[in-house]
Amino acid sequence: MSGAITLTPLQGLPEVTPGADLAALVREAAARGGISLSDGVLCVCQKIVSKAEGALVDLRTLVPRPEAIAIAEEDGKDPRHIELILRESVRTVRRAKYVLITETIHGFVCANAGVDLSNAPDDFTAVILPRDPDASARRLREALLAAGCGPLAVVITDTFGRPWREGLVDVALGVSGIAPLDDQRGSKDRRGRELQVTIPATADALAAAAGLLMKKADGVPAVWIHGAPLAGDGNARQLIRDAKLDLFR
Amino acid sequence: MSGAITLTPLQGLPEVTPGADLAALVREAAARGGISLSDGVLCVCQKIVSKAEGALVDLRTLVPRPEAIAIAEEDGKDPRHIELILRESVRTVRRAKYVLITETIHGFVCANAGVDLSNAPDDFTAVILPRDPDASARRLREALLAAGCGPLAVVITDTFGRPWREGLVDVALGVSGIAPLDDQRGSKDRRGRELQVTIPATADALAAAAGLLMKKADGVPAVWIHGAPLAGDGNARQLIRDAKLDLFR
Repeated sequence: MSGAITLTPLQGLPEVTPGADLAALVREAAARGGISLSDGVLCVCQKIVSKAEGALVDLRTLVPRPEAIAIAEEDGKDPRHIELILRESVRTVRRAKYVLITETIHGFVCANAGVDLSNAPDDFTAVILPRDPDASARRLREALLAAGCGPLAVVITDTFGRPWREGLVDVALGVSGIAPLDDQRGSKDRRGRELQVTIPATADALAAAAGLLMKKADGVPAVWIHGAPLAGDGNARQLIRDAKLDLFR
Repeated sequence: MSGAITLTPLQGLPEVTPGADLAALVREAAARGGISLSDGVLCVCQKIVSKAEGALVDLRTLVPRPEAIAIAEEDGKDPRHIELILRESVRTVRRAKYVLITETIHGFVCANAGVDLSNAPDDFTAVILPRDPDASARRLREALLAAGCGPLAVVITDTFGRPWREGLVDVALGVSGIAPLDDQRGSKDRRGRELQVTIPATADALAAAAGLLMKKADGVPAVWIHGAPLAGDGNARQLIRDAKLDLFR
């Protein structure tokens, strides 16, 4: 089975709370599962990173603006939830009934600015995206390297919808230790012809693959990917298309 | 390593020509690699399916319409290539210099209607998408089942760009033997709260995962995925968002 890639769920992580040492929790889960955290990519879902970093907002502290009240009324939602989405956004990209797609303060274009009430610790706490997911990935990677793990890369994943296609796939929000884009421009096809515009979004493909094992209800928040080549370095901001070049904003 | 998923490249497939018996070629490659085609998902890249089905067009037979000539001139391309893209499309979704995003006759929204000159057998032959990728997946699956393989699903993959994000990921063009969407609506999160709008696009995640091993230049056109649950059935048309509900067409 030469060249195989293996995805292994890191099971049995406890409920993550603010201040939790994610690197330690990941190492414990790996040890329990007999997984050596060497020569691979650790994919971690955004939710536990946010929780560990305390990226939580008490909805009761928010005063919704008129726009938030109007949207909430139309969609039958909590206006403070919409207020938080607007605070986490720099711009609304599309709005229709039950749909609020914005550009987040990080530059991601997604539904509800990644603000999530499911799997939150209680009914009035919302989980928001990490302030700087690339920095989160870098910190987690460095903590694991310092503990003797590696070589490894870290990809922080979240589940996004997409235009034109139904269903959600996981994408990379934060990246450390691997090139998020595998630039093959200039390489040749099998007939020696130069390959055009073939730039696989490796970090997103890793995230999507890990998503096969990250089922929200089952509580598998981290997946170890062994066998994917660890080439280059970079960050998830490289995955965000420049707004000026984007035909869909 | 309970619950692990393994992706294995099917290596050494010969150059596929019209009329080729893909099921036989896949079985031979699996046998050479020591891979048992049982209890898994076979991902096959669109290109070899198209070639086996003879979904090839000799550009010299095409007479470009004025629109094709204008676009080709602007982009420095062969007008017959653009003509073929327009023939494979029902509608242009976005057009900018060097970018032609259309809705294909199948309903996919993608660049250049999936018409590809790279890895084509010569300089004037273009490879187009299979006429009915779901039927292609079904036929390949049935041929493999008839040969004693299985249980298995087949996903035909292609590499698409996406709005807002750089780089390409593989998606499912054709599906047989697995539900392309894993509808978790109505299930509960860990705190017993109902999960909202959480419908993973399983077939697209499988395609993206397989894409990690399908490097054009390396000639790995098929990947065997073992360990992903084979739940339900359906087709890739279910992955196409109804144009009336789509905010980005």
